[in-house]
Amino acid sequence: MKPKELTDLSQLCIHTITLKPWSIEEAAKKFSASGVKGITVWRDTLEGRNIKQTGKMLREHGLTIVSLCRGGFFPNKDAGKRQVAIDDNRRAIDEAAELETSILVLVCGADPSQPLEDSRKQIQDAIEALLPDAESAGVRLAIEPLHPMYADSRSAINTLSQANDMAEAVHSPWVGLAVDVYHLWWDPCLEKEIKRCGENGNLLAFHVCDWKVPTTDLLLDRGLMGEGCIPLKQIRGWVEETGFNGFIEVEIFSNAWWQKDQSEFLNKIISAYREYV
Amino acid sequence: MKPKELTDLSQLCIHTITLKPWSIEEAAKKFSASGVKGITVWRDTLEGRNIKQTGKMLREHGLTIVSLCRGGFFPNKDAGKRQVAIDDNRRAIDEAAELETSILVLVCGADPSQPLEDSRKQIQDAIEALLPDAESAGVRLAIEPLHPMYADSRSAINTLSQANDMAEAVHSPWVGLAVDVYHLWWDPCLEKEIKRCGENGNLLAFHVCDWKVPTTDLLLDRGLMGEGCIPLKQIRGWVEETGFNGFIEVEIFSNAWWQKDQSEFLNKIISAYREYV
Repeated sequence: MKPKELTDLSQLCIHTITLKPWSIEEAAKKFSASGVKGITVWRDTLEGRNIKQTGKMLREHGLTIVSLCRGGFFPNKDAGKRQVAIDDNRRAIDEAAELETSILVLVCGADPSQPLEDSRKQIQDAIEALLPDAESAGVRLAIEPLHPMYADSRSAINTLSQANDMAEAVHSPWVGLAVDVYHLWWDPCLEKEIKRCGENGNLLAFHVCDWKVPTTDLLLDRGLMGEGCIPLKQIRGWVEETGFNGFIEVEIFSNAWWQKDQSEFLNKIISAYREYV
Repeated sequence: MKPKELTDLSQLCIHTITLKPWSIEEAAKKFSASGVKGITVWRDTLEGRNIKQTGKMLREHGLTIVSLCRGGFFPNKDAGKRQVAIDDNRRAIDEAAELETSILVLVCGADPSQPLEDSRKQIQDAIEALLPDAESAGVRLAIEPLHPMYADSRSAINTLSQANDMAEAVHSPWVGLAVDVYHLWWDPCLEKEIKRCGENGNLLAFHVCDWKVPTTDLLLDRGLMGEGCIPLKQIRGWVEETGFNGFIEVEIFSNAWWQKDQSEFLNKIISAYREYV
């Protein structure tokens, strides 16, 4: 079943990293002028800013701050470095609270010098250690399963099934999941696992972009929606069948797009959102 | 449980593509002189050769021809092109028979212009269409699940679980699976699925290399065993626990290694096989 057309921009959120050449102030102005309603803030854009004032500035532009990206990178063979990561995640939770956003997205990390099982256990341990902080700040932690091509050093959580297992094991209202089509589109279990995620109340965020054919870089060659082969409408349909009606977040890392005029790119994102998502 | 050390080269097979700059004649000489006992032949190396005589030449060098690489690339939106692929696979089966190898490895293919489910169905249909040819030639078809980063255009079969499902659905002594660590190492279900594959008599081939950190190219940056983060001994242990005692096949596509002296590379493969596999 195809989902309803996206006739307005009320659910459109864009990640600051998608238009990386812009400062957060410029992004806020341009998003607002184009009718974009949501923004997900990457931490690097907050550098040197007063975070509370930045949050206020974004809201004054009519933007909902959908989430803060990103915490995570928990696993490390060295216990001291794991503690450093947990401390940094506490700061990220504080930053999310100062921004008044209710979600911190976790790119969970992996340490290639140790077995994946160890990295996976350290991720769960770290998330459990952060629960009191998340609760007291009112910030939910969204585990984002990453594509298996990132299992070496970016995330040991590589399928939605695994992420569902972990969220269910942690079993806290402060932990849920972020579903990103780029990481998960290939998975034959995707429909089933999205349903499971929704039924357990764990579906916190939905990220879109496209998988280019061919893809020329493992990290920085994501496609604009419609440029690739991901069945975006089908996956959105599965997400919405769970009752999810939150923001649809455009998260694109692309050297090719970052080299172009960003205002034009923003216009293309908006057209692609209407046509292909 | 760690598997036994590989103290001799009796199970070492190398794919011709691993030492791509060499002709098959040169590879045969060098493998033989180095004590390598098995060779997997890529079809491109047979171009312009009499295949039966090439098979004889390889055996005269003391080499077992472990398999022919590769058939597959079945899915296509266009039925005529699917037929072309089936015809080409019939030729590949004939070539395998002429070489007197009993396995044809299938890189199953995917057509990014159609849904993955369609590609998956077309793969199974094609394999079923080839069963009489496989049987009459005495050649088993080994479905090789490929890493999810190849789901766009190289294979719609992306986990061992899926490949097991398909082999069990086809349910023929002429169809089994090739387990390649590069494609599967990240999968949290790998141990279970290798066991399942073995129990069903479907484990036909075992391919090794390594996953480099970082990997700089989606296709041609595979690592020599020991250069990356794949737990090779652990996975070999799982494979051998099923009773598998066939060849261990070194399959590396690497622009970096192909630019080096190939005799030196062969020596490094042999050391890495003893030390890291």
